[in-house]
Amino acid sequence: MLNVLYAGHASRWPKYRAPLLAAFAEAGLNVDLRTEFPPEEVDYIIYSPNSRVQDFTPYTRAKAVLNLWAGVEGIVGNKTLKIPLARMVEDGLTEGMVEWVCAHVLRYHLGIDAHITGQDGTWAPVYPPLARDRRVGILGLGALGAACASALARLNFQVAGWARSEKFIDGVTTFSGAEGLATVLGHSEILVLLLPATPDTENIIDAQALAQMPHGARLINPGRGQLIDDDALLAALEAGRIAHATLDVFRTEPLPPEHPYWHQPNVTVTPHVASETRAESSSRTIAENTRRSEAGEPLLYVVDRVRAY
Amino acid sequence: MLNVLYAGHASRWPKYRAPLLAAFAEAGLNVDLRTEFPPEEVDYIIYSPNSRVQDFTPYTRAKAVLNLWAGVEGIVGNKTLKIPLARMVEDGLTEGMVEWVCAHVLRYHLGIDAHITGQDGTWAPVYPPLARDRRVGILGLGALGAACASALARLNFQVAGWARSEKFIDGVTTFSGAEGLATVLGHSEILVLLLPATPDTENIIDAQALAQMPHGARLINPGRGQLIDDDALLAALEAGRIAHATLDVFRTEPLPPEHPYWHQPNVTVTPHVASETRAESSSRTIAENTRRSEAGEPLLYVVDRVRAY
Repeated sequence: MLNVLYAGHASRWPKYRAPLLAAFAEAGLNVDLRTEFPPEEVDYIIYSPNSRVQDFTPYTRAKAVLNLWAGVEGIVGNKTLKIPLARMVEDGLTEGMVEWVCAHVLRYHLGIDAHITGQDGTWAPVYPPLARDRRVGILGLGALGAACASALARLNFQVAGWARSEKFIDGVTTFSGAEGLATVLGHSEILVLLLPATPDTENIIDAQALAQMPHGARLINPGRGQLIDDDALLAALEAGRIAHATLDVFRTEPLPPEHPYWHQPNVTVTPHVASETRAESSSRTIAENTRRSEAGEPLLYVVDRVRAY
Repeated sequence: MLNVLYAGHASRWPKYRAPLLAAFAEAGLNVDLRTEFPPEEVDYIIYSPNSRVQDFTPYTRAKAVLNLWAGVEGIVGNKTLKIPLARMVEDGLTEGMVEWVCAHVLRYHLGIDAHITGQDGTWAPVYPPLARDRRVGILGLGALGAACASALARLNFQVAGWARSEKFIDGVTTFSGAEGLATVLGHSEILVLLLPATPDTENIIDAQALAQMPHGARLINPGRGQLIDDDALLAALEAGRIAHATLDVFRTEPLPPEHPYWHQPNVTVTPHVASETRAESSSRTIAENTRRSEAGEPLLYVVDRVRAY
């Protein structure tokens, strides 16, 4: 019998309980799953960074922390965490992100906002170019970025992708390093940010980066708020150098009502809905990692504490 | 030397002249391409239904009419037309349609309008289902409908398609006949119309068809205005039985400024921009059909005068 502590946010427990139990059973694991245990009796910790558990010291026999979120910046620096930490990678999260990114890239590509907001009886056809003639960039080619890059390439877009390390993705031109970043920024009529939040990526979209993008480019950020220097972006939006931005993530969430992003006419704020972890598929990832740990196999998606993701 | 008459709309001649000449040359054809010939000297007629040519009687030696448009309802009933008529099928038109249809299906799927028009500082996350749990229908599985159905299936949607005759498309559940139509209508949380305008399809979306769709369904029409009984749709929209419609084509175009569709809050009018024939790729289709005709091979995309498409 394994003692598995659900230490995600209490509000999500009703949604996760049954799918987790089903996934553990399917993986052939005999699990006692609870929201409370004496800390020294816990074998595995299912976690999200908004958990009440912030000190891992008392969990003396725990073997791994299994994160429910793709983002780990809220836990990776925790000095009390000495055991392996696994990020969440699961089909539902990836699929939702692909759908959201394709939707907003197509929306910008076709200029759909003008139709939604301009129903004034004026018949003024404008034909956008084909996707084959539209240059899209993606920063970040992890599980989410790579899946989005592939999907956009299948939709015929000219996709350039950038990641810290070299990647190979069918139909996507990939770059790495500082010079590669400048190339992708210069390429991107529409730029999608899917980098993790790390000390290296903080403010990667600053005034200099924005100046390297084509005039009138569009920016889509479903990654992390810390990637953007907000003042620099607001200045570029006000000057029209960046024509429009759709922002799903922010340094402070919920984004405060007085934040200039809400009031900037060429910004669309979405309330961190680009994708969410789905209970069924993420429960399968957690059960699989528990099974691997018990079988002495390497964990999937283990966070590298130096790279911070 | 072949005498080819460009009888498309005069406004498009500057755009088509060079691509047509290039395509004929590439097909190895020696062509004299002009906008004026003595009618009895014309071998082929490049055409669009808004042409000044409406009487084909004087074109005594012409071998075929090669339409620049996918839609032929403006010519197929012309009694003076005795020679083969070919519809336009070309990559650019298909690609543009796939992009437009995917964009609007994704827009409805994710409820993007609420974000575009609701930037009031309220942080109210709502998570849509995944595409794998979203049911989309397509009426019409010709070159455009089949390509859109495939693309939506690749985006993970549950796609059901209907056509007059049986079709097989990877990843798409297909239906035909009257019973099949009811099934697809009942399936479609989002319904896309890509049927040709024929006597059989006129008003196919009438009060009865709308009543068979799920409550709160969305309708997307990039096909032909004649497919919809406008009064029935307006009634369904006002009752909220159809939650929203995006309409690109109309019985009268431009849609008159006083038309109720412009003023209905849950309708988005787009000015027949879903896709357009692209000069380069459509010129290749026309040159290929001319080459086939001269070589005694069967023409591509010949219109069946009985089915009217």
